[in-house]
Order: sequence, then structure tokens, then C-alpha cells
Amino acid sequence: MDLREIFQNNENVQEFNKSITIFAEETPGDLMYVVLDGEVEVWVGGKMIEIIQPGDIVGEMALIDSNKRSATAIAKSDCRLVPIDEKLFLFMVQQTPFFSLHVMRILVKRLRNMDSRVGA
Amino acid sequence: MDLREIFQNNENVQEFNKSITIFAEETPGDLMYVVLDGEVEVWVGGKMIEIIQPGDIVGEMALIDSNKRSATAIAKSDCRLVPIDEKLFLFMVQQTPFFSLHVMRILVKRLRNMDSRVGA
Repeated sequence: MDLREIFQNNENVQEFNKSITIFAEETPGDLMYVVLDGEVEVWVGGKMIEIIQPGDIVGEMALIDSNKRSATAIAKSDCRLVPIDEKLFLFMVQQTPFFSLHVMRILVKRLRNMDSRVGA
Repeated sequence: MDLREIFQNNENVQEFNKSITIFAEETPGDLMYVVLDGEVEVWVGGKMIEIIQPGDIVGEMALIDSNKRSATAIAKSDCRLVPIDEKLFLFMVQQTPFFSLHVMRILVKRLRNMDSRVGA
């Protein structure tokens, strides 16, 4: 199962052309995005740390802890993203355990990538 | 609300004396722990990166992605921990949205700490 299966028929799709900044580090953020098509680069402190693929999510950190964006997200190619606000996020967590598990797995994947940098 | 409120009356409590290794980096892991009392040090690649406080969790990464332990956990003081296996974890995710949100918030907190190291 892939988050695209849940969100691909969502009416609320945002398109970003290649090289557009989707959100910027240190700004307030109240949306996360499911990537339907295209790739998204994630930059922290001037370093590109990850490329988000279709079916994956980006921007979940600011939504989960209501803090500022920890990273800048830039469309690596033309992208189609489904925005998820807090209300929809909480609905998904309550109604769809798979969604919660998927978000957790993505966060853990990112932590492992970071651990390998810090511990290297 | 605090995870101790959910787990404090759990019958399955494990006690670890100060300085005992609770789990070791690179070993298989199928339990996470809720810290009821005491503090737990988290070490990655020979560096102490975090001290887990009561009400917080440790060891969730290996449980969530079924991979090896990314870190070593050592009892900083005498500790009382509630172990959570995959079955209980999935039950909690399905039945208690607060639990999922709490796990996500802890993962995000750890990612922000890591981001500040990588981006510094």
C-alpha cells in the first residue's frame, strides 16, 4: 500500500513547477504534502539532505509539532502534491492506522539517515 | 497527557539498574520502552546524543521499521520501563490516536535535534 492510493483521487491537488520553493526553512508551516508525481529536494542549512519520491510525504514535521519549518523543500521536477492540513491530518491519524504507521516509518527512515551522518 | 498515565498500571514493568545496557546498537530489536522512572542515555557511534526522561519512549525505531537498533540505550539511573512489543504497538496505534501522535512528536523532536547538528 502506498499513500498515493489513498490520496490520488483527492480533489485538492497543488502543482509546482520545477525549481519552485514549496516551503522555506524557518517559516511557519501548517501543511504537509503527499507527493503524487515528481520529486522534491529537501535542504537543511544549505545542504541537500534528501530527495522525496512519489508516494512519500514532505513537510510533516511542522504540522506534527507546530514549530517552524526545519527545512526548505524545492520541486526537483514538475510536481503534483496533495496538501494535508491539521484537521485532515488528525482525521487520518484517527481513522487510518496505516497512515500513522506510514508517517512513523518515514520519520524513522529520516532519523536513520541522520544517525548515519552524526554517528559516522 | 503523558504516556505514563496510560502505562503506569501496566503489569509488565522491567527494572534496569544504573549503567545497565538496555539494548545495543546494531542488534535486532523488537521492543520499545516507555520510561516510567529514571533516565536513559542514548548513544550513537560512541557519542551520547540524548537523555530520555520519564514519560518519554526509547527504542521505537527498530520496532517501527523492523531494522536493527540505531543506537545503544544505557540506564543513566535506576529505571523502570514498560516494554511494548509489536502486537501492543499496533493495538495502541489502532485504538489510541494520542499514542500515535505522541510517537510522531517524539520522532520529530529527535529529527529537529539531528537537523540542528547536520545543518549547524
